[in-house]
Amino acid sequence: MKTSKKKLAGAALAAAVLFAGAPWGNASLAQAAASSSASTLPVKTTLYTVYQISPDRLYYDAATGYLQIDGQNALKPAIKNGVSYATSGAIADAAAKAAKQLPMTFVLVHGSWTDASFWSKTVAELKRKGHAAYAPEYAGHGSLYKPDVTHEQIVQSVVDYITSKNLKDIVLVGHSFGGSVIQKVAERIPDRIHRLVFFDAFVPLDGQSVADQFPAELQDAFAQLIQASGNNTIPMPYPLFRDGFVNTASDGLAKQIYQSAKPEPAAPLLEKLDLKKFYALNLPKSYLYFTSDTAAPQGDKYGFNPAQSGHLGQFRLITGNGDHMTTAYAQPAYLANKLYEAARD
Amino acid sequence: MKTSKKKLAGAALAAAVLFAGAPWGNASLAQAAASSSASTLPVKTTLYTVYQISPDRLYYDAATGYLQIDGQNALKPAIKNGVSYATSGAIADAAAKAAKQLPMTFVLVHGSWTDASFWSKTVAELKRKGHAAYAPEYAGHGSLYKPDVTHEQIVQSVVDYITSKNLKDIVLVGHSFGGSVIQKVAERIPDRIHRLVFFDAFVPLDGQSVADQFPAELQDAFAQLIQASGNNTIPMPYPLFRDGFVNTASDGLAKQIYQSAKPEPAAPLLEKLDLKKFYALNLPKSYLYFTSDTAAPQGDKYGFNPAQSGHLGQFRLITGNGDHMTTAYAQPAYLANKLYEAARD
Amino acid sequence: MKTSKKKLAGAALAAAVLFAGAPWGNASLAQAAASSSASTLPVKTTLYTVYQISPDRLYYDAATGYLQIDGQNALKPAIKNGVSYATSGAIADAAAKAAKQLPMTFVLVHGSWTDASFWSKTVAELKRKGHAAYAPEYAGHGSLYKPDVTHEQIVQSVVDYITSKNLKDIVLVGHSFGGSVIQKVAERIPDRIHRLVFFDAFVPLDGQSVADQFPAELQDAFAQLIQASGNNTIPMPYPLFRDGFVNTASDGLAKQIYQSAKPEPAAPLLEKLDLKKFYALNLPKSYLYFTSDTAAPQGDKYGFNPAQSGHLGQFRLITGNGDHMTTAYAQPAYLANKLYEAARD
Repeated sequence: MKTSKKKLAGAALAAAVLFAGAPWGNASLAQAAASSSASTLPVKTTLYTVYQISPDRLYYDAATGYLQIDGQNALKPAIKNGVSYATSGAIADAAAKAAKQLPMTFVLVHGSWTDASFWSKTVAELKRKGHAAYAPEYAGHGSLYKPDVTHEQIVQSVVDYITSKNLKDIVLVGHSFGGSVIQKVAERIPDRIHRLVFFDAFVPLDGQSVADQFPAELQDAFAQLIQASGNNTIPMPYPLFRDGFVNTASDGLAKQIYQSAKPEPAAPLLEKLDLKKFYALNLPKSYLYFTSDTAAPQGDKYGFNPAQSGHLGQFRLITGNGDHMTTAYAQPAYLANKLYEAARD
Repeated sequence: MKTSKKKLAGAALAAAVLFAGAPWGNASLAQAAASSSASTLPVKTTLYTVYQISPDRLYYDAATGYLQIDGQNALKPAIKNGVSYATSGAIADAAAKAAKQLPMTFVLVHGSWTDASFWSKTVAELKRKGHAAYAPEYAGHGSLYKPDVTHEQIVQSVVDYITSKNLKDIVLVGHSFGGSVIQKVAERIPDRIHRLVFFDAFVPLDGQSVADQFPAELQDAFAQLIQASGNNTIPMPYPLFRDGFVNTASDGLAKQIYQSAKPEPAAPLLEKLDLKKFYALNLPKSYLYFTSDTAAPQGDKYGFNPAQSGHLGQFRLITGNGDHMTTAYAQPAYLANKLYEAARD
Repeated sequence: MKTSKKKLAGAALAAAVLFAGAPWGNASLAQAAASSSASTLPVKTTLYTVYQISPDRLYYDAATGYLQIDGQNALKPAIKNGVSYATSGAIADAAAKAAKQLPMTFVLVHGSWTDASFWSKTVAELKRKGHAAYAPEYAGHGSLYKPDVTHEQIVQSVVDYITSKNLKDIVLVGHSFGGSVIQKVAERIPDRIHRLVFFDAFVPLDGQSVADQFPAELQDAFAQLIQASGNNTIPMPYPLFRDGFVNTASDGLAKQIYQSAKPEPAAPLLEKLDLKKFYALNLPKSYLYFTSDTAAPQGDKYGFNPAQSGHLGQFRLITGNGDHMTTAYAQPAYLANKLYEAARD
């Protein structure tokens, strides 16, 4: 689904039919098309139908004669009867400029009850946009699955991954439990980090565990699951997963996502973390919050936003539609764009 | 506005113009069209313009060659210059699959200051999607209007309706005050219920009334209106209705909706409800929350979400755009789709 | 980008290609077009592609035969194979009716760290919709910039502007700090005001200052900036501006917006305001809340909604996507439409 200027030529043809000098009546399409010089296209409709740029994002500055997209000059249209026209090439250039992202390097750290495959589609979409993107597996998860693992081992996995590849100037993204991981990674290799992005992530305060961020009832439920597990893991019952992690998914997609949910090693969730160094760091921070996420109960006390995000002090908030896990599987291009909004300078 | 494969053939023609082998220049549309084999269409633009499926919902899986919609394999496109193409039939099938809903049986219970006509359009839209849908009138409201009615009589109306029609495996939806009604109906006929859906609904705790969910100021205001009524009802002044129930509606639609707002029988709102049995039930529950709804003051203390929803314990949250009443009249297809998202397994 | 019926004729041509009596197969576009009588267009697709009216806003009332837009009868389509058709003129009329706004008179009062130019694009968009719109500069800001100014002088500027132009029946909009300004202006000239609209605005209670609405940490930070300024102003550091005011903007637009951010005169923010008269007034009030706004920390305690909005007592809530400042520069037509939704009766 990549966009190239070559393809735009074909696509813009569609918009060509939108142009007609004479009032439309009983004239057949063929007649109307023949009578059209077709050298310019109506800008607004072309941007909408061919480039999916909504009219809300447009502004015509009568003083300068520029049409703006997202507040930036995009092209100088010709105005006829109150409608803006431009050549297909000018419209294609304007749309490409509006979609352009400055290349960044993303390292994506997944959360609990999943593994690095959580990010597969997001990595692909970020790469399509021109970014470098990495999703390291970490200790105790995915191909490295084992019930007994420590928070420190997880952190070490991510640090090793980044240093072994010598990645620099990275946007370090942590999802869910991964928030506590990027806090500790940031303590270890702050000079390699351009910005931290917490995506519906837990942000423990100094001396707290991730589990400390949950309501008491959930902590109790997890304690019972741990005890029943016999190997210090927390198996996630499907109904809880369905309601808490993939509430907006279809039945079929929910079950598909659940297949990655191995019993989660409990120790890293319960470990009290020394985060003094993190809270003394001065790295730029963003928080990406999806408004249908109920993996943490919504509201002031436990909600990802404002409760967890509020631990960050100053941060940039980006919001979006989605729940805890579905978007990464169902709308990865949307998630990738939101991550870029959170990451850019 | 129902979709059939037959009509799609016609509709897909529109997308045909998006295809053109040769770069577009000064060629007239007729020429370009003639030079097009027109055997395939660009998938992304066709899905957007003909089927209103946004590019955010698409993902091209390079490994398998499948284009996904909402995370599910939809079709295998041919790729030319980075653009996906497929036949109109394949695209129509993919769009139909993405729009498909498994048939369910909905019973919709309205709230206060309205009657069963609140659901008329939603019922029609659910039926268009292949569901069974019922909106019973209940005691004291609509055609059964009378000021003196009890909560129990209302509950009995709904129970009688369901049992007399022998409805089973139902999705029982309660809106606003209707939340308390479906709590009590669930106590009575749990075996007929597939799932409970609370739509911006009050969810009293055991021993509470619906009025107990309001702030003290509103309770006081209602007490005054009741006293002034002389017949134990609460007439709803238009300014309060406009601001609290239909805040996003146009002036004209707001006044139209207000016409159903008879003085509400007060007793059912004030009755303390024994809900021990409800809170011991183990039925699947969803909460549909529209983010512009201010019929209850937003926020942690009185908001539909998270305050009222939080009474449910475990539940599935679905959010949407809208206020308390307008969507049922202005965007019933949207509401019907949101109810399905809340209802499906 | 203004819409006129004349241009609609041309635009509707696009939709003409959507009509085809015969099933679409290998027929070329030219043939298909020639075989089309083209006297009517498919309503749903035309409204979407030509007028950007989403199918969610449509409802076909089988009983009356009317297609509704936003719950209001729009046109009587012909139904063929389940698809609605109408003439291009009928569709154009329906779209125009749905977009129609009753003319109002807006006076827009800006906030801190900007000037009247904040509203330039919004004024232009409101005028394009047929409204009268004014954005007065006030004492100490923009062309009148000076560090020593009082809250009362600012209020007087706005009162003088309104009375000198003899504006009546106005929708008085206050953004951010401007909320406190329109509270005081309303005390002075209530008879000229049709409705007050608070747009992500501070709403001090009687005896409070605007600064009293901030968390203690922010008040402390401002106190330090004031002391360092030497002239009782609060310079806004770029990182704070970027994260707090324009979090959703592109890097380029964020820097552009920052250029209007002169050091803000501190006195008006710190002044305790006598608002007894305001809270005794009985003017209609709306609150427009953009859900990504973090100029005030989100949540029950400090959030624009529900904390500041909650000070108003009864009010109409309108929500939208956006942050504190970006929308006025990037999506002014969207902001203008939201202001109209907040303003209309």
